[in-house]
Amino acid sequence: MGNFRRVPVGIVGASGYGGVQLVRLLMEHPEVELAYLGGESSAGKSFADLYPHLAHAVNLPIEAVEPEIIAHRCEVVFLSLPNGLACQIAPKLVEKGCKVLDLSADYRFSDLATYTTWYGAERSDRTTAATAVYGLPELYRDRISEAQLVGCPGCYPTASLLALSPLLKQGLIVPETAIIDAKSGTSGGGRQAKVNLLLAEADNSLAAYGVVRHRHTPEIEQVCSELAGHEVTIQFTPHLIPMVRGILATVYATLRDPGLVRDDLITIYTAFYRNSPWVKVCESGVYPQTKWASGSNLCYIGVEADPRTGRVIVMSAIDNLIKGQAGQAIQCLNLMMGWDETLGLPKLGFYP
Amino acid sequence: MGNFRRVPVGIVGASGYGGVQLVRLLMEHPEVELAYLGGESSAGKSFADLYPHLAHAVNLPIEAVEPEIIAHRCEVVFLSLPNGLACQIAPKLVEKGCKVLDLSADYRFSDLATYTTWYGAERSDRTTAATAVYGLPELYRDRISEAQLVGCPGCYPTASLLALSPLLKQGLIVPETAIIDAKSGTSGGGRQAKVNLLLAEADNSLAAYGVVRHRHTPEIEQVCSELAGHEVTIQFTPHLIPMVRGILATVYATLRDPGLVRDDLITIYTAFYRNSPWVKVCESGVYPQTKWASGSNLCYIGVEADPRTGRVIVMSAIDNLIKGQAGQAIQCLNLMMGWDETLGLPKLGFYP
Amino acid sequence: MGNFRRVPVGIVGASGYGGVQLVRLLMEHPEVELAYLGGESSAGKSFADLYPHLAHAVNLPIEAVEPEIIAHRCEVVFLSLPNGLACQIAPKLVEKGCKVLDLSADYRFSDLATYTTWYGAERSDRTTAATAVYGLPELYRDRISEAQLVGCPGCYPTASLLALSPLLKQGLIVPETAIIDAKSGTSGGGRQAKVNLLLAEADNSLAAYGVVRHRHTPEIEQVCSELAGHEVTIQFTPHLIPMVRGILATVYATLRDPGLVRDDLITIYTAFYRNSPWVKVCESGVYPQTKWASGSNLCYIGVEADPRTGRVIVMSAIDNLIKGQAGQAIQCLNLMMGWDETLGLPKLGFYP
Amino acid sequence: MGNFRRVPVGIVGASGYGGVQLVRLLMEHPEVELAYLGGESSAGKSFADLYPHLAHAVNLPIEAVEPEIIAHRCEVVFLSLPNGLACQIAPKLVEKGCKVLDLSADYRFSDLATYTTWYGAERSDRTTAATAVYGLPELYRDRISEAQLVGCPGCYPTASLLALSPLLKQGLIVPETAIIDAKSGTSGGGRQAKVNLLLAEADNSLAAYGVVRHRHTPEIEQVCSELAGHEVTIQFTPHLIPMVRGILATVYATLRDPGLVRDDLITIYTAFYRNSPWVKVCESGVYPQTKWASGSNLCYIGVEADPRTGRVIVMSAIDNLIKGQAGQAIQCLNLMMGWDETLGLPKLGFYP
Repeated sequence: MGNFRRVPVGIVGASGYGGVQLVRLLMEHPEVELAYLGGESSAGKSFADLYPHLAHAVNLPIEAVEPEIIAHRCEVVFLSLPNGLACQIAPKLVEKGCKVLDLSADYRFSDLATYTTWYGAERSDRTTAATAVYGLPELYRDRISEAQLVGCPGCYPTASLLALSPLLKQGLIVPETAIIDAKSGTSGGGRQAKVNLLLAEADNSLAAYGVVRHRHTPEIEQVCSELAGHEVTIQFTPHLIPMVRGILATVYATLRDPGLVRDDLITIYTAFYRNSPWVKVCESGVYPQTKWASGSNLCYIGVEADPRTGRVIVMSAIDNLIKGQAGQAIQCLNLMMGWDETLGLPKLGFYP
Repeated sequence: MGNFRRVPVGIVGASGYGGVQLVRLLMEHPEVELAYLGGESSAGKSFADLYPHLAHAVNLPIEAVEPEIIAHRCEVVFLSLPNGLACQIAPKLVEKGCKVLDLSADYRFSDLATYTTWYGAERSDRTTAATAVYGLPELYRDRISEAQLVGCPGCYPTASLLALSPLLKQGLIVPETAIIDAKSGTSGGGRQAKVNLLLAEADNSLAAYGVVRHRHTPEIEQVCSELAGHEVTIQFTPHLIPMVRGILATVYATLRDPGLVRDDLITIYTAFYRNSPWVKVCESGVYPQTKWASGSNLCYIGVEADPRTGRVIVMSAIDNLIKGQAGQAIQCLNLMMGWDETLGLPKLGFYP
Repeated sequence: MGNFRRVPVGIVGASGYGGVQLVRLLMEHPEVELAYLGGESSAGKSFADLYPHLAHAVNLPIEAVEPEIIAHRCEVVFLSLPNGLACQIAPKLVEKGCKVLDLSADYRFSDLATYTTWYGAERSDRTTAATAVYGLPELYRDRISEAQLVGCPGCYPTASLLALSPLLKQGLIVPETAIIDAKSGTSGGGRQAKVNLLLAEADNSLAAYGVVRHRHTPEIEQVCSELAGHEVTIQFTPHLIPMVRGILATVYATLRDPGLVRDDLITIYTAFYRNSPWVKVCESGVYPQTKWASGSNLCYIGVEADPRTGRVIVMSAIDNLIKGQAGQAIQCLNLMMGWDETLGLPKLGFYP
Repeated sequence: MGNFRRVPVGIVGASGYGGVQLVRLLMEHPEVELAYLGGESSAGKSFADLYPHLAHAVNLPIEAVEPEIIAHRCEVVFLSLPNGLACQIAPKLVEKGCKVLDLSADYRFSDLATYTTWYGAERSDRTTAATAVYGLPELYRDRISEAQLVGCPGCYPTASLLALSPLLKQGLIVPETAIIDAKSGTSGGGRQAKVNLLLAEADNSLAAYGVVRHRHTPEIEQVCSELAGHEVTIQFTPHLIPMVRGILATVYATLRDPGLVRDDLITIYTAFYRNSPWVKVCESGVYPQTKWASGSNLCYIGVEADPRTGRVIVMSAIDNLIKGQAGQAIQCLNLMMGWDETLGLPKLGFYP
């Protein structure tokens, strides 16, 4: 292989589910090597203490988070931290020349006032934030390719926006009629000890949460507004589902032209995503199951039209931890590095 | 106790989940005794062959289905059969004087043309069908009290209609904006060997099905239209959830008066259901979990308003096999017999 | 009904799963009334804050734990506390004349040295402890009937001992060959926020824990030794199963007489439990499923003999929160009060 | 890459879970190409009809099973059929020069009389059967390397034998004391519509099955006997666990030398498997979870000794569909072809 050199990458916040997915996927990525794992509360432990099943493959400590040192060792840094922490680290990493992919909400907003309204914190990194690109490759492939700092979308916005974008972009729906009823596995809540995420509580049960006020709403609206060309307000309702992985977004909207039939819409979706290797539009009459996507970076989309009500119903299924989180970040990295968008990412779900 | 006599009841179709729930609940009902269990394919077996855990409590055979004999032995008959079979038996039972509670779709429609359109079968029992009452006690308490034949609602319509009725009855929403996104445990598919209901397929997964064409749609629309005073078309989308029991219906609709706030709506719901012992309206900011209702005949309703979109979001949670099926049928029986509506029905869910 | 008076009962530690099961079951018990709910960390809240789905039925505050006041208001007190706390409260309650049922390990041991060895704490309540009776009615019905203080068995010991007792009592097995491979749902871990009990961790997974050192071991051995008439050492291995409720104990032991066949053993078990209404011995060739017991106070036992190996294999299934905890405590109460042993307890599982 | 040529492989019985796992894994294997998929009942369909989520990656029909044609197109054939069918096809494929890997029981037995006793069918392919090698690489690496026909082990025997082999091989235990208490996810039952495998039946429940007579018993005994050097009878009890994937075998045996402590045993296991890349022995005090192995070809082994009882307890965890089935077959293929044993197989589980 001669002078082949793998790109050294680091992960800050390696202890959570985002972290472990990044570790697993990056270890199988042919162009990178894991050079650094960092964390706050877990600093000093080894990664194998947290995930013993990977002890045979990952022999790295969780180190303290010191941006200078990280930048010295890594060309690329993934930040997988709670909201409000990335914005304290990213500016230094960017300044030192690192490519940075943030998995939190900190760099998702073009208008930081929106961030402050929904996340309740002021921001002092406006200059850095202004350079950030929203990391949804299917919509912003070109921008991501040239970005140094990418704010990766949340899991719900990924599923929701992939379902809605063709409709908004082509002006096929009345935007304000859009309703997103989303359902997520409990791993979306992270590896945190919370009573409501206990198996004994969450299994064999189902409920909505964050109704009318979930923090992923403004992120969805920001992109929808850009696609629609004007300010759009969206109804978004998340639900907690008794399963580990997966998101299904069921999206409803009123068609401007009620004469559009299912097959028309499928043709439009297929065309819209023809250059997007990670989106698969289902055949007529087929609706996606989240299990299909489980373990892969794919998003499956099913489309239905209802001539009785004049609505389109779109269902999108992703693995919340891969296309909804770690996989998408790596997809963005592939673009930022000029690699093939599919490099190193799983394309076959581990069904059943 | 002197001349106390329990009312003899029979169940036709005792082998399925509806049947076993009826058996369990009727055995704990203080006014009835199980006098007959019938079935087609399971005739000749004992009930304990099908449900060995009840062998200690239920010592009854599954008998052939002969209406004359059933009517001779039972004052009340529950029909828990696939669609299209009850209508072959019910007329004879009614004629013989039995009170009949049908759990299938056969007697849910005031217009049999709707039945034929959605269920694909012609009907020859128009006279009998004309006497049937729709068995949703919260709306039709008086009619049920005087009925001899009750067509018990489906599980989805029960959750959906309890969520929607106060809004439609009071004219608070634009009816055609109503969207019902419903989620059900897999026991709703019955005790039938189907690949898509296998644990290996359905667990850790989630999908919509029957989009824009599920057979529970016309039943929901029939009641909504009656409440609204004009023909109403509803969007209804069911989803299969990886859990055994429970339905959550998440209902969206546009308020006529966008100034209505959550607490106004909760007051309206509370008033609407003040005489309905089986409906519990949640406090402000509380959304129901299906697990709360599990094992009980209760329906929990949570209400939210979104000033940003002008919509109301209503969530209703039931146990699909109890309030959505067997429990509701017994609730109807209580009314038909002049007993207290809560008699013999479980009111405390078996959380967790 | 004239001067009928319900017995006032209290629950100290009402916030956990043991507590909520006690509340639910005691509310449906015809002879008692809930007079007091107490807790440490949850004092000051209402019970409905913790379990909103019971708000319609339980309107009681969680009060501070003051034994004098509790004893004044309650004739019977259930202690559902972490190990090591009951022994600080029980002596005062007993002294004041209360009947006390402790669900923790504190009063399960006839020899407190065993307690100290396995639970690591010295005890100063030897006089009180000496009066405690082990609350397994199927073995100690008479003692419980006359007890004022009952130490209710753990969930694993209940399943294990009901499986082993006939064999040991009749001298049918070589005691030291007994191996108990037990499997429990995660509700056995309580309503505590622990990472390993999260749905995302525990679902779709399975592991042993506490191998060779689980604290339920000495309790099982104490009873086995008493039955065998000499000191017995038992192999006990618990496993965490991805389900909410239920325990299955699979018990292996070498038969003294390898000529004993399955039907002999079933006859012996049936005879042994003929006066035990809560134990059901399965027919030949039938093995119990935990779901059968779910929601009931029953223990189902299946028996198999292996002529190839000379072993008996016994499987016992219970609901860990009912027969394994709250239901069994109430069964003991029934005996202590001279009521029918089955009073107020659920006998039909909520299958499926 | 020049004259690089992928080896054409076929799968007979591609429609089940074994089939879909083979397809997925073989598609990611760098040295092979899928050249043929065959099936009986599904012949004429496309593979994507059965597994729509793979439509984007697998564009192959399910063809009729004609050995001549298969042998013409494939160098290697995997047989993933119900027991009793492979033995009708394999002889012809072997005769035509194919390498054959059978996933059923047909070629697992060195003595066909054992097969006939446990599987109830006579066999006419004795010559072919005599050449078959038992496909457990950790024990029979050399034989497999030279085999043309491999009978791949069942899922339970794989987990059981990897746990037991070091003990038997080194003579550390009394063989007849060995008890295997095994627990499997429901995917082990295949993609067949059976009532007991429905989510509504199997979820939140647990039971033993096939007690004292499961067909995997003789296969385990055959290998144990070979390792022990004399005929060994084993106790084997499988359980159905409410999860999709995974097997945990908990193995109990009496140590010949009760002075052996845990760390001694871990040293012995580590040495035994030092050349086995797919077996990972856990650190002292760590017990494997099935989720660790999920999605990988790994077997995790935890070892514990009990000085109180003189027993060793070994826990082994595998993914039943990978190391327990399709992955192991490919591991065997790697050996048969002279490739690295780990080639193309997943080594990082998809936790959580």
